[in-house]
Formats: sequence, structure tokens, C-alpha cells
Amino acid sequence: MSTRLPTTDRAARVALSRIAEPGNTSVHRAVQAHGAVDALTRFVNGAMSATGVVGGHYSWSRLAEDLRGSDLLGARVVVPSDADWPAGLNDLTVPPLCLWVRGEIDLAAASARSVAVVGARSATAYGTHVATDLAVGMCERGFAVVSGAAFGIDAAAHRGALAVDGLTVAVLAGGIDRLYPASHAQLLGTIADEGAVISEQPLGVAPIGSRFLKRNRIIAALTNGTVVVEASLRSGSLNTAGHATSLGRPVAAVPGPVTSMQSAGCHALLREIDSQVQLVSDADELAEHVGRIGYDLAEPKRGERRATDDLDPEDRLLYEALPLRAHRQIPDLARSVGLTEMAVRAGLGRLELCGAAERDLLDGWRKTGTTSTRRQSTRGSVGEAGR
Amino acid sequence: MSTRLPTTDRAARVALSRIAEPGNTSVHRAVQAHGAVDALTRFVNGAMSATGVVGGHYSWSRLAEDLRGSDLLGARVVVPSDADWPAGLNDLTVPPLCLWVRGEIDLAAASARSVAVVGARSATAYGTHVATDLAVGMCERGFAVVSGAAFGIDAAAHRGALAVDGLTVAVLAGGIDRLYPASHAQLLGTIADEGAVISEQPLGVAPIGSRFLKRNRIIAALTNGTVVVEASLRSGSLNTAGHATSLGRPVAAVPGPVTSMQSAGCHALLREIDSQVQLVSDADELAEHVGRIGYDLAEPKRGERRATDDLDPEDRLLYEALPLRAHRQIPDLARSVGLTEMAVRAGLGRLELCGAAERDLLDGWRKTGTTSTRRQSTRGSVGEAGR
Repeated sequence: MSTRLPTTDRAARVALSRIAEPGNTSVHRAVQAHGAVDALTRFVNGAMSATGVVGGHYSWSRLAEDLRGSDLLGARVVVPSDADWPAGLNDLTVPPLCLWVRGEIDLAAASARSVAVVGARSATAYGTHVATDLAVGMCERGFAVVSGAAFGIDAAAHRGALAVDGLTVAVLAGGIDRLYPASHAQLLGTIADEGAVISEQPLGVAPIGSRFLKRNRIIAALTNGTVVVEASLRSGSLNTAGHATSLGRPVAAVPGPVTSMQSAGCHALLREIDSQVQLVSDADELAEHVGRIGYDLAEPKRGERRATDDLDPEDRLLYEALPLRAHRQIPDLARSVGLTEMAVRAGLGRLELCGAAERDLLDGWRKTGTTSTRRQSTRGSVGEAGR
Repeated sequence: MSTRLPTTDRAARVALSRIAEPGNTSVHRAVQAHGAVDALTRFVNGAMSATGVVGGHYSWSRLAEDLRGSDLLGARVVVPSDADWPAGLNDLTVPPLCLWVRGEIDLAAASARSVAVVGARSATAYGTHVATDLAVGMCERGFAVVSGAAFGIDAAAHRGALAVDGLTVAVLAGGIDRLYPASHAQLLGTIADEGAVISEQPLGVAPIGSRFLKRNRIIAALTNGTVVVEASLRSGSLNTAGHATSLGRPVAAVPGPVTSMQSAGCHALLREIDSQVQLVSDADELAEHVGRIGYDLAEPKRGERRATDDLDPEDRLLYEALPLRAHRQIPDLARSVGLTEMAVRAGLGRLELCGAAERDLLDGWRKTGTTSTRRQSTRGSVGEAGR
């Protein structure tokens, strides 16, 4: 079939997206070998053919329709030669031919500091809470939050980002005019206004089956790293995590109750042998894992420090022998802990220095009183946490 | 001070437990060098002295009292030369001199297949539930459950074991006559009847501060491995986990909600760099981690398998193009998915074989109907989990 063919790279990529499912390996190879314009010509003229490529069906009117449709929607088509093409996509074995984009943001800049927050559609209240919190925290740290606009974790992530005027990007499995799920039409409208709604699928393409799996590779490639918040053992978010791992991107998972099937997928990820998947419990830890090395550092979590934490064993024994309200004399203490009086005197000096012991006028010693209004037993005042 | 000194290893070890805190390094070294009888003699006679050793205070009447007290309590003293001395204790830098034991079980046998289940005293309902479940599951797999009889996780572990007539051992920080905490007196009585209550501390010794830390090393050494069920960032159970790690024993931690401070210690363990701590979510996984290699294997958790799971990409595309209720003819399918009719025919054959597609008399094809009473959309029937 003879037809007028596009002569620009951009138009050729749009056309190629119609004659084969995006992600088609043969099309990718042909474009690499011959450029998009020439590859399209060969497929349409029958000089080249490949599984899944229906070159004979393409027509110029279809291309015109595609470009007009895009304009009507206020969308644009971004191709690899554009300045705001996200470089991360080039890491894919089969990168998208082009992206349909609704939204004014610079995609390349957003992608350069970004995190994918993904997870179960049938999320629990716990999962949506954590996803929202993580998205908020990551936006506050300057990350764009990328997800798939699905029910549950995805939506919570987008909403968290929007709540703090953060950048958020929704990657759809179908065309960007096919707002899916339908009940997220308003959410997707807001994301397009404030961030971007993108897809490698041309307009009108239905979001079905395998397109979700292909979409997941884009979420993984677009971002610095991926966190799975809740996932059942068959969740598609594990597929996104798998893509991220293949791409060498850091992957994190949020743990949850072991009694919740919605956390079982996260726990399975964390249990994988030689797993590089990191357990994260908040945005600090997530930013450290997916962010810039040496820049996005999380403070290690520690319990409250106590003055007596660093006592050596002898001083600790001595400390424990001290009463809290009464006083004890040094010879008595020495007998009790099995130290010489000189050693006890030195130890008491050290305890006094760190504020753990005090003496009265008659050289009796006791533990330093706390200002707590609760009555405290001797036993309760130190080492309680050490049991 | 001259005094009648014990002449047996057992009596000397009981006496040594009185003249220094059990766990005293100097006493341990002296016993290793000279034997317990000779070491005791040297400390009491002043031929040897060491920090924390109050040899001058010991008297024969004290020993008689100790042994009589033990008898009255129906307890026994187990020493390293006894057949039921748990061999694992010898891995400690400073093993106990002896153990006071209430309970008829063979400690060595119990210790040989055992797990320490430890955690927060201020456990949540989630934590106690999981600890009970783990203890039940481990007992059913023939493990003895060892813990510290504290409130919260410890008690839940003991109770879970008792509920299924499993073996359980409580290791106390004070003397075995000092039932601590007091409100667990009945629980400890049952543990002594069904399993064992043990301590390296002589009778009457109060369970205070550093003795809990020393006790923890015994819990770790006595068992094949340790699981921390819930732990705040300063929980003593992290100390037990640390001892277990130092001893080369496997350590596991149960995750929980990241919103719960009672799981923060477990998450911190799991996040440690080069952590060998394994995330476990049930007794299967715990038994695999602490049990015998190749014997206590856990089945990897998987989602439900579907007939279409292993389809190659082309067959999957074809499968997705099939309607669920109507039928489609082969030429139509070929056009739609961009395959030759021959390829479609072959693909349909494979789909038919795996039960995913069926044909009507007129050679029309559709997805295999399910017997589900729910109406299913085409989209919902496969790949739903793949999103």
C-alpha cells in the first residue's frame, strides 16, 4: 500500500507507535539501525516486516488524526532528541519511541530527582497512610513522585505530593486521553495541571493487560529508585521493583504487619536471597536509599541517650548499688560490689561527673534524683531498657 | 579468714557464684586455670584476688544454706560436667559457673533444638499475637521456646508454647526463687512444671539492671537462634540479638507497621549494614532460618498460579485480544495483533492446551469462561495482578 509518509523523526515515531505495540523489539532495532523515518518507510512499504508490526495498515490520515488529537488535548509528544526527554528512559532495553505528555513541567528535570512510589491497589488504611507520608516527605526533599495513578497506594502517593504542591507524574498504561481508572479522572486532571500525565501509548489505546507490565518499566526507568509500600504476593508493583532492579536502580520496601497479605509482597522482596532491596520506614530512609550519595543521609534511629549509657561494667555495678533516696557510705559500697574503697571512690567520682550520682554532706552517696513527679523504684531508674 | 571449703566441683561452683557476680571474667579465668575447687580456695584464702570478687566474706554455712535452699525449692544445680549441661553455653566468652534449674526436662536436649523468642515488654496486641503464633508453630516443629518471662513478647512466647504442650524454658535475671515479674509467678510455676525455669544467679539474688544484660547472653547461647518479635529502639531484646550475632547464631526479626515504635527496633536490626538478620513472617520462615540446613525448609511464598502465567509475550497479546463472551475468527485476530494467520493458529493451539482459550464449532475463538458467578470484564480476567 502506498501512502504519504512522515518526514520528521517526531512524526515517524508517532506513526511507528501505531503500527506496532510500543515496546516492540523489532521496531526498536529498526529505528536504531535506520532512524525512525526510514524504519517507518520500510515497514509501511513492506521492505521490512516483523512480528507484531502491521505496517500495511498505516495511513497518513491516521498520523494527522494523532497529531490533531494531541493538540486538542493540549498534549505534546516528547522524543529522545528533545531537551526534556528523561535520560533514564534510555537505560531500557527497549525505550519508548516517544512519550505523550499532558502537563507543562520539564520532564527531564523532574525525572532527575524522583522516586517511584508504587503498591497494591487494594491497599489498607495503613498502606495509604504510609504512601501519603512518604510522598509528602519526598516532595519536601525535592523529589518528584512518580506512580501509576491506580487505586490504593498509587493514588495516595500522587495525592500526598499534590497536598504539599510537590511534583508528581502519572504514567498510564493506555493513552493519556483514556483516563484510567475512570473514577480517577479528576485526580488525573489535577496531576496534568500540576505535574504531568504521560504514556508511551498513542491516544485512544486501551489500558489492558500486558500494557500495565510495559508501563511499569517506564516508571522504573524514569526514577532514581522505587519504593513498594504495600504489595500482595502477585502485585504488579513487584514487577516495577523487578524492572528497577534490572536497571540498577535502588529498590526499597516498606514492611507491615506479617498478618497482612497486603504486606506479604514487600516482605517477600526483603527476604529474597542477596536482595538489594532496602527496608525503609520513612522519607528520611527512603531519600538516603534513592537519593544522592552523601547528600541525602538519614540519621540512624537511636533510642534516647542516658547519662549512664557509657558506663563501664564496674561503674555500672556501683551505680546499681547506689540507693535512690537513702545514702550509702563508701566502705559499705565497697563490700557490696567487691571493690576496694579506693576503686569505689574513683568510680563515684566518675558517676558524679556524668551526673549519675550525688553525695550528701556526710559523704553518703546515692543516685541522682530525677525531677520526675512519678515515684521511681531503684530498679526502674536505669537499665530498664536493657532487659 | 579460715573456713571449711567445698571439695566438689559442683559445690565450689555454687560457692563461687556467691563470692562474685556470675559472669565475672577473673573468676572464669581462675576456674579455667585451676579448677573450681582450687580457684575458690585461692579467692577465699586471699591467695588470689580480683575486681568484683569478695572472697573474704564466704562461709561454709552459706554454702549449706544454698544447697538446702535449692532442695527445698525442688531445684537442682547443673554444672558443665553434667550430661544435661547445654553445650551451647560453652560458646560464651564467660559461660555460667553453673545453672540453678527448676524443672525436670533434659536441658541439653531442649537446647539442642530451640529458639529464643524475645521482644518488647510493652508489646502491642499485634506483637503478642505474632509471638504466640511463632511459639506455637516452633513447638509444633519440635523446637523448645526459650525466653525471659518478662511482660509482653516473652510471656506470649511462653504461653504459646504451653498452649500446645511444647517445651519452654524461662531464663531469669535473678535467682530462680525470685519470681520476676511477680505477677508472672503463676506462669513461672507452670513453666517449671512443664519445662524449666533457670538462672546462673544463686537463690535470692535480685533481678536488677546489668543482670538482665548478662541473662540475655544465656538466652542467646542456649538456643539455635533468636527472633525479635517487637522491640523499641532501646529494647533489651536487641541486646539478646547482639549476643546471638556475636555467637554466630542466626537472628531473625519480625517486621511490623513503620508507624509503631514497638517495631522500630526490629526494623533497625533489619536495616543494619551487612546485617545477617533475616526478616521472618511466620514459623515456617523462622524454622528455616534457625533450624537444620536442608531439613527445616520453608516453601517460598507465591501468589496463586494462573494458567496464563507462563505465556510468552505474543501468546499473551493474542490471549488479550480474545473476547470473553463473543468469538473472534483467526483472520480478524491476525490483523488485530499483527501476526500471520499461521502464527495465530499456533498460538491459539497453545492457549487451548493450557486451558486459556476455547473455540466454537465455526472456528471462532474466545477466552475460556470461568465458572465464577461474578461477571467478569475482559480486562479483569488476566493480568489484573500484573498492573
